[in-house]
Amino acid sequence: MFDCGKIAVIGGGSWATAIAKIIVRHTHHIGWYMRRDDQIADFKRLGHNPTYLMGVRFDTDEIFFSSDINKIVQEYDTLVFVTPSPYLKNHLKKLKTRIKDKFVITAIKGIVPDENLVCSEYFHHVYDVPYENLACLGGPSHAEEVALERLSYLTVGCCDQEKAQAFTDVLTGEYIKTKISSDVIGIEYASVLKNVYAIASGICNGLKYGDNFQAVLISNAVQEMSRFLTAVHGIERNITDSVYLGDLLVTGYSNFSRNHTFGTMIGKGYSIKSAQIEMEMIAEGFFGTKCMKEINRHWHVNMPILDAVYNILYKRISPQIEIKLLTDSFR
Amino acid sequence: MFDCGKIAVIGGGSWATAIAKIIVRHTHHIGWYMRRDDQIADFKRLGHNPTYLMGVRFDTDEIFFSSDINKIVQEYDTLVFVTPSPYLKNHLKKLKTRIKDKFVITAIKGIVPDENLVCSEYFHHVYDVPYENLACLGGPSHAEEVALERLSYLTVGCCDQEKAQAFTDVLTGEYIKTKISSDVIGIEYASVLKNVYAIASGICNGLKYGDNFQAVLISNAVQEMSRFLTAVHGIERNITDSVYLGDLLVTGYSNFSRNHTFGTMIGKGYSIKSAQIEMEMIAEGFFGTKCMKEINRHWHVNMPILDAVYNILYKRISPQIEIKLLTDSFR
Repeated sequence: MFDCGKIAVIGGGSWATAIAKIIVRHTHHIGWYMRRDDQIADFKRLGHNPTYLMGVRFDTDEIFFSSDINKIVQEYDTLVFVTPSPYLKNHLKKLKTRIKDKFVITAIKGIVPDENLVCSEYFHHVYDVPYENLACLGGPSHAEEVALERLSYLTVGCCDQEKAQAFTDVLTGEYIKTKISSDVIGIEYASVLKNVYAIASGICNGLKYGDNFQAVLISNAVQEMSRFLTAVHGIERNITDSVYLGDLLVTGYSNFSRNHTFGTMIGKGYSIKSAQIEMEMIAEGFFGTKCMKEINRHWHVNMPILDAVYNILYKRISPQIEIKLLTDSFR
Repeated sequence: MFDCGKIAVIGGGSWATAIAKIIVRHTHHIGWYMRRDDQIADFKRLGHNPTYLMGVRFDTDEIFFSSDINKIVQEYDTLVFVTPSPYLKNHLKKLKTRIKDKFVITAIKGIVPDENLVCSEYFHHVYDVPYENLACLGGPSHAEEVALERLSYLTVGCCDQEKAQAFTDVLTGEYIKTKISSDVIGIEYASVLKNVYAIASGICNGLKYGDNFQAVLISNAVQEMSRFLTAVHGIERNITDSVYLGDLLVTGYSNFSRNHTFGTMIGKGYSIKSAQIEMEMIAEGFFGTKCMKEINRHWHVNMPILDAVYNILYKRISPQIEIKLLTDSFR
């Protein structure tokens, strides 16, 4: 049986914190890379992440913190990457240690900018990690709810099913149920696309389209996602599995979703700049939209929702016009 | 080309009112059967339905009202039935006119109690209406939003595609988009099952399960629906079409859904009786659950969500226990 060995988390945000909580409960030790030493110092002093999920208390004796990514990568066998995708390359720049023999799990839900690769492909192409050492973590999972120990279902994708199983064994617990999948690429793309669709849903909400239409939008989004995944990675998959449909639903229908909130502001007429300033952050789907549009230039899949969001965010075409056109393409 | 001829609406509730509004805008004349003469008198005096969707104004010169179902059936060619399913048999009891040559459209979203038939089957078996004269109307459609002229998508199912098309032509307009389907039975069953799942979603909400779990519940509900429809009517269908998935979403995710509200009260610990009294009505899914459970005794489809809701509503098993068991069956 494959053993995950010593596990480290790379990243200091809310999803990283939720994953660390899930793992350390089982392993009683994790490595944890965070970029800033002052954040680590505050974490140790307070016993919780000073910035995210502050209600989740940790026994800091069970954590080896470091702001040196090389130290973490040298000492640990399984590396769970949970940084925002736009910053992944920057973190990895400092890497001088080989990672091709590590078990690399991406829980990033984003595309590596400029490269236009999902994270597992990036690790494979740039860091020579073989696919059997690459996994992804997906599923409908607001970090805030995991923090509150509300029942959540996660899916681990890996072409090596034994390795996928080994990592689910580390995650499974009282409030976490798991399943395994071999569809790494599909899960990663689905988790990017759902952010695009959450923005679309928000835009329609801001434009005062109602619940009847939202249901049609999401139904069409599932079909668009399915078309794209089939084109890019044509294996047999059930698009209504929770890792695809469920993840889309939790993002598209949640008022807690930043992408949805961002979309709502755009639909209400905020400029992109002022929506971003108002939110004090940039919604991940904003980058995801551009990356997906560029990737789809290669695949030519019929993706009217992606196109509409792209035109609104990057071509400054009015949301009214784009969504009106979109409604005509729906069935 | 088939012509719907003179169209009448049978029923006086909110969905009947919304459908009447959609049709009369196009035809400038409809027949309208309502059970009570005083309701008709009030409607004529006020210019709107005195009880439902009171904001929707009608030109009553365009409506021929009658509380005599025989008069309506004699005079009209296309009959749109929109009564609550538990009362359908009672309305039809008074019928002395043959309807087998009429174009009968069911917009009922329920099972005929005791018979355990969807409405099109009931009209076929009991009133000898041939299948080519039977259609159904489905899709995600809160009546309240149609009243507000918010964009909605409806699907007309009929094995005779020309007739389906003829009825969509009557519906299509500025805020109504339509499509046709041949899957009458599938659409009717889906519209019953979605009420069961909306109750399940409400129960989980009342038990404080979070958004992550709701997304998994709905994903599993779609799969359960798909399994049942495949068993009962094994044609090729895309379960993510708006008439299946969309209708489930608008009911399962809406706080306006009576079935969802009913479920939430059950999940919070209300007895079934007191939840019904509190709501001043009985949620349709309450009957639907019992009918579907009985129907599935014949088909033996694996339907854990239906079973759980049935056990909670009819076997008085605690929601906590049933939903806990359900969570173990999910993937």
